Amino acid sequence: MNIITISREFGSGGRELGKRLADLLGYDYYDKEIITAIAKNKGMDSEYVSTVLDNHGWLSFPVTFQNSFAPGIINVQTELLVEQKKVIEEIAKLGKNFIIVGRSADVLLREYQPFNVFVCAELKSKIKRCMERANQEEKLSEKELIRKIRSIDKNRMNIYDIIGGGVWGDRANYHLTVNTSDWNIKELASAVKEYHAAFLGRTK
Amino acid sequence: MNIITISREFGSGGRELGKRLADLLGYDYYDKEIITAIAKNKGMDSEYVSTVLDNHGWLSFPVTFQNSFAPGIINVQTELLVEQKKVIEEIAKLGKNFIIVGRSADVLLREYQPFNVFVCAELKSKIKRCMERANQEEKLSEKELIRKIRSIDKNRMNIYDIIGGGVWGDRANYHLTVNTSDWNIKELASAVKEYHAAFLGRTK
Repeated sequence: MNIITISREFGSGGRELGKRLADLLGYDYYDKEIITAIAKNKGMDSEYVSTVLDNHGWLSFPVTFQNSFAPGIINVQTELLVEQKKVIEEIAKLGKNFIIVGRSADVLLREYQPFNVFVCAELKSKIKRCMERANQEEKLSEKELIRKIRSIDKNRMNIYDIIGGGVWGDRANYHLTVNTSDWNIKELASAVKEYHAAFLGRTK
Repeated sequence: MNIITISREFGSGGRELGKRLADLLGYDYYDKEIITAIAKNKGMDSEYVSTVLDNHGWLSFPVTFQNSFAPGIINVQTELLVEQKKVIEEIAKLGKNFIIVGRSADVLLREYQPFNVFVCAELKSKIKRCMERANQEEKLSEKELIRKIRSIDKNRMNIYDIIGGGVWGDRANYHLTVNTSDWNIKELASAVKEYHAAFLGRTK
């Protein structure tokens, strides 16, 4: 079984890279599907799960927020991270080749020795990408976007640290770190595919 | 003219990668040659130039050290960095494809838009590589080696900062960051060659 994990800075195009790579390789692809599975397992709303896991810092939510918490649960993010771990382990147990975007999957799947990619880009390139992709109702100013990028990446960094990954984005944690700034993602996906093939075929 | 710069952590195999890549691509290769040219231009001993530029921190050397300094030169490293810049600019002006290892060449050659690679490895892999390559007279203990790796990389980091590169090793400064830990360098060089070819052939 071959696993590729894609970690990425917000706005770098990591998700698109992962999806295109999965298409090229014929691998299963997991991203939002994990949020959906967690939400289903916990009887929660997907959007809420995504908000807690992805968009906020390492915060305690009020117990009464939304609709689904038993009294006594004080840290929802921890609870959801535990469920997320289970969901990802179940995916690995299917034994099929897959690509997973985000979720600190390189740490959670360490025992399976995945091929770990980190995707970054220059700030101006991330801002451009975010602006192009924003829905009308979420148009943010450049200043707000920079704050959003920092806040989301900070959360990823914190979760990565908490679950034992060390420093999120630290080059030593990944087989390959690619900078998408000067690429179109479709062509980059082909280049990463070739690099991965060379890695799999290497003399050990 | 295509230029590839290779920056690397000490002990990561970056030099070997650069050399093999140059062989595969038929590019000129610059590494120690630059030290030799600086030494020649300045009328200094090559080994001394290498010691000042590569092995020590941002230090002032005693004016009387070795044999070649005019009175009043208080910071030899700065002097040599200026000469290094000249030498590297002269190489670029030759107009031939080349690979250059180290020397913060990605910063010095920015206007030529080189393809910038950063080479890293896990610490244990760097220690292993250093131990295998050490001459009999430079056998260091693991502890000493770790200190040497840190000290040399710290010097690279300082020089990179001083000449305006920002944070040495910061993924956003390079097109590609490769981790050599699980590779043999010969095969890795082929993989990087393919990635570079895709980069050159990309739709802009």
